[in-house]
Amino acid sequence: MSKSKNLWNKAKKIIPGGNGLLSKRPERYAPDIWPTYYSKAKGCEIWDLNNNHYYDMTQMGVGSSILGYCNTEVDSHIKKIINRCINTTLNAPEEVYLAEELIKYNPNYQSVKFARTGGEAMSIAVRISRAYTKKDKVAFSGYHGWSDWYLATNLNGENQLKDHLLPGLSPLGVPKGLKGTAIPFKYNDINDFNRIIRENPDIGTIIIEGARYELPSETFLKEIIYAAKNKDIVLICDEITSGWRLTDGGVYKTNNFNPDIVVYGKAMGNGYAISAIVGKENIMDLAQDTFISSTFWTERIGFVAALKTIEIIVREKVWEHLIHIGTLIGDGWYELSIKHDIKIIIGKMKPLINMQFQYGAQNAAIQTLFTQEMLKRGYLASTSVYVSYAHNEKIIENYLRGVDKVFQIISKAIIENKVNDLLETRVQEQEFQRLT
Amino acid sequence: MSKSKNLWNKAKKIIPGGNGLLSKRPERYAPDIWPTYYSKAKGCEIWDLNNNHYYDMTQMGVGSSILGYCNTEVDSHIKKIINRCINTTLNAPEEVYLAEELIKYNPNYQSVKFARTGGEAMSIAVRISRAYTKKDKVAFSGYHGWSDWYLATNLNGENQLKDHLLPGLSPLGVPKGLKGTAIPFKYNDINDFNRIIRENPDIGTIIIEGARYELPSETFLKEIIYAAKNKDIVLICDEITSGWRLTDGGVYKTNNFNPDIVVYGKAMGNGYAISAIVGKENIMDLAQDTFISSTFWTERIGFVAALKTIEIIVREKVWEHLIHIGTLIGDGWYELSIKHDIKIIIGKMKPLINMQFQYGAQNAAIQTLFTQEMLKRGYLASTSVYVSYAHNEKIIENYLRGVDKVFQIISKAIIENKVNDLLETRVQEQEFQRLT
Repeated sequence: MSKSKNLWNKAKKIIPGGNGLLSKRPERYAPDIWPTYYSKAKGCEIWDLNNNHYYDMTQMGVGSSILGYCNTEVDSHIKKIINRCINTTLNAPEEVYLAEELIKYNPNYQSVKFARTGGEAMSIAVRISRAYTKKDKVAFSGYHGWSDWYLATNLNGENQLKDHLLPGLSPLGVPKGLKGTAIPFKYNDINDFNRIIRENPDIGTIIIEGARYELPSETFLKEIIYAAKNKDIVLICDEITSGWRLTDGGVYKTNNFNPDIVVYGKAMGNGYAISAIVGKENIMDLAQDTFISSTFWTERIGFVAALKTIEIIVREKVWEHLIHIGTLIGDGWYELSIKHDIKIIIGKMKPLINMQFQYGAQNAAIQTLFTQEMLKRGYLASTSVYVSYAHNEKIIENYLRGVDKVFQIISKAIIENKVNDLLETRVQEQEFQRLT
Repeated sequence: MSKSKNLWNKAKKIIPGGNGLLSKRPERYAPDIWPTYYSKAKGCEIWDLNNNHYYDMTQMGVGSSILGYCNTEVDSHIKKIINRCINTTLNAPEEVYLAEELIKYNPNYQSVKFARTGGEAMSIAVRISRAYTKKDKVAFSGYHGWSDWYLATNLNGENQLKDHLLPGLSPLGVPKGLKGTAIPFKYNDINDFNRIIRENPDIGTIIIEGARYELPSETFLKEIIYAAKNKDIVLICDEITSGWRLTDGGVYKTNNFNPDIVVYGKAMGNGYAISAIVGKENIMDLAQDTFISSTFWTERIGFVAALKTIEIIVREKVWEHLIHIGTLIGDGWYELSIKHDIKIIIGKMKPLINMQFQYGAQNAAIQTLFTQEMLKRGYLASTSVYVSYAHNEKIIENYLRGVDKVFQIISKAIIENKVNDLLETRVQEQEFQRLT
């Protein structure tokens, strides 16, 4: 058995769920053959514990490594700061410098708070909004983390979060008093949104994602803006996943959406933990009246990493590269799907390009086969790619050559009804579920 | 005006509250003269933005820097790991190694989860406990962070948290449905504890701090253990502040307290952000049935920092040094208080040694004067000291020489009723309150 498999088996015994992030579980890709652990990484290349080499054509640190692994400029800066100390009794001045930078690139906003994780940042945004509106009820679309305020959605006894990225989320352990405080609506579905607003006159906060695999439609945003204005609702845009990939800031900058609060995370520190809540002064000011404070929010590394990462993103217009490379990948998938007669739908968010196989109950097995065959060719691959600045045309060309061969295998397997026969692993899990 | 003061004034305009942690606000020490920002630090020495030099005889990174600032061994290890990449699509093997180490030093426990901040770790512990007991109600003593589950205490309309480290905490923005889910009891007060248990038969979780300035009494722990056993209540020990300072793990190891879940943070990574939930397998297993997941919990730096920090703590028996130095400080304060006829009470938790002036409403002004005069002598000082491995007898000797002179000033000022006249700054804030 490989070192990685041994270690994962041990991990599952002493860490419930095996690790701290669902998206890094091997069960989400190809359970028995995914490399699971890394030893080192550079650019978009990664080496596992047995020194096998892969190109990362999928998650890139689950969206965190926007410049590529081990970006020399960011990392050398971090090392310098470590030499000057990363956490003391006094404050790091970079906390203020980063707040200034975020206001510079989000010029409609005047106020910033920081946290370390995306889940925390969203909880802070919701706390501030509830403090401002004095209303507990939140309407939302999309995925926003593990916190009580979000999982409370499923206290209504149904799988209400099933249309929001991750089905199967249980609200076990979330206080029952939160029932009815979080109401989901479907992304880009005006009728569903308006029904929710009509049925819940006491909604104080509306939350959407800046983008995921799809971009928000103009009419969808118009309805949201109209409802918010009419009913004094606070608008929060969760740009944790989408931020810095399409602009020098959030996707909201492309579509005249002017939310009250914008939340960033993931890409902002090129892998180092940092998240930010950027908002309008009159609303953010409520953070002074409710208690929001944590020791490790003031550690220096996150601020310094984000300052340097944003500097590079802006200087190099990194988002243009991400769009270009994402377009190459999406177009490549499309052409190869025609060539091999494979039914897929391709997403519109180029920097987080996504394909969905259109084979219903067979999808999970087909995706597992795709990952399995790409692994053999030296690629970490699944149905979506977080493009990074380290991906280039040459890498994509070679990758698509691999996809060509793998699509051929998949096409033949579908026709001959042999997808499962070809699998050398259990099928991937697509819902949140207990590991066995 | 100093660079620090300029920057803090700017910070207050663009960051509500000025920073991310109440305990790093200058208003908590000596509002107009506290240096506020650092440029660099090493050992227990720190330089502000104007290159003024201080010895840190107070917070040491608010308890996070247990080995001292810029510990060479930890930091050189972190730099090596940065060269191998800190966040990829695959998992860092150090997550598993650290879980193994925590189980080694907490041998009654079998299961570990990680987060980045203390507030998160406590929220995870509460979620797991609620999932296990199916009961929402939590009884607690002490300070446990900014999260909804904790601030819900004050939804009862009174300042119920006033006896728990930080008075004035507002539950603004905490959903009203959480009312009655968090019930405080006084530390080391058996009658109060038993009353709470009697009046609330539906309590599922009891939370106490491993220690703060005081250690838990044997009888207090006995009552808690008895109630928990009798009523199937889950016991959580919050060792975020106390952990690694008195033993190779939690304070719970010294007093036969055997909680179901132990939570670590702060000191564990010597300043780098990392926290851990260590618990009994049957309870922690519920973390597989409720959704607990976040991208930045899997970043490598926290695991690596904690592995190296724990290795050094255990190898050097760091807690013995902390107890020794803390005893020197406490004894020194005591002798000088006798010499200058100053009324103080000194805490029993040596590694977080604490003195309380006994002058009622005058305390805040006296403490401010203490900080002001110690600053002039080159010390960051207040009424408590997180001792670090970088503090030594020579530093304490010099520090106590400074305290001698400052106690003399304070004594004279109290007698002549001139404490406020001597202040060159506004008086420090002792409650949570809006900055002006």
